[in-house]
Amino acid sequence: MILKSQVEWALHCCAILAGLPEGRYLSTKALAEFHGLPKEYLSKALQSLSQAGLVHTTLGPSGGYRLARSPAELTFLDVVEAVEGKARTFVCNNIRANNPCRPTDHCDSSPCAIARIMWEADEAWRQKLRGVTLSDLGHILSQEVSPALWKNSFEWVLDRAG
Amino acid sequence: MILKSQVEWALHCCAILAGLPEGRYLSTKALAEFHGLPKEYLSKALQSLSQAGLVHTTLGPSGGYRLARSPAELTFLDVVEAVEGKARTFVCNNIRANNPCRPTDHCDSSPCAIARIMWEADEAWRQKLRGVTLSDLGHILSQEVSPALWKNSFEWVLDRAG
Repeated sequence: MILKSQVEWALHCCAILAGLPEGRYLSTKALAEFHGLPKEYLSKALQSLSQAGLVHTTLGPSGGYRLARSPAELTFLDVVEAVEGKARTFVCNNIRANNPCRPTDHCDSSPCAIARIMWEADEAWRQKLRGVTLSDLGHILSQEVSPALWKNSFEWVLDRAG
Repeated sequence: MILKSQVEWALHCCAILAGLPEGRYLSTKALAEFHGLPKEYLSKALQSLSQAGLVHTTLGPSGGYRLARSPAELTFLDVVEAVEGKARTFVCNNIRANNPCRPTDHCDSSPCAIARIMWEADEAWRQKLRGVTLSDLGHILSQEVSPALWKNSFEWVLDRAG
């Protein structure tokens, strides 16, 4: 069970968009160039973010993407679910109902115990992702990325932002 | 990101094998019939359990599977990893290294912050699964399954166990 590469791409793009000044947009071309990614595939990841309402889009020569919410209100889970969907990672097909010993009128009062345990683990994963915002990520990166690289990247992005 | 159906099948099979008396084995045929599953596909899930060392196998007419460890020493994570593998659900392709602003001699001291956060969430998921044993599951099921169905199922299984 592996997440799509688009999850990684979408998180990195959101981290860059989180640093854009108010009202500015960054194109798919610039985001693809900055991350060394194929523009056509990256645009699908960005469309997923747009469809989930996480980014605003403008068309035209200076068009592109910017975050639709403040980085403090956008979590890792928002981004992961925009790309992967909100469905639980464990699907219960209720195979206990195939047990040949079950009376035909047997009715289960609660979901299968196996499914409940798997869903609790799924929820623990989501809870962790829900607890980290893009603002938290920006804080970590500002501590870890060298000042020169941070400044150069910011200027590179601003030069290309519409 | 959805787990394979074999995870569900393997967990249900282990739950049944956990109830087998010492030294008895249950065949793929019986496990498939009990769960209403296609024998050929189920045998792949059982082979995964065998390759991971979670079950013992015997060949021959009375052959089949039994748990290789006590149910108290076998966790949900063991079963999930036997089927899905131990690889993390998030793969970091280190795309930050493609940043055109990076000096060519730039060296990162630690893994990408995005990957670290995704791996922490993956670990929270595994931690939950590591915390539940087949013995815990048996305890829950013994409370929830009606006494008649519990007894009938046990007898059905014993009738077919080698």
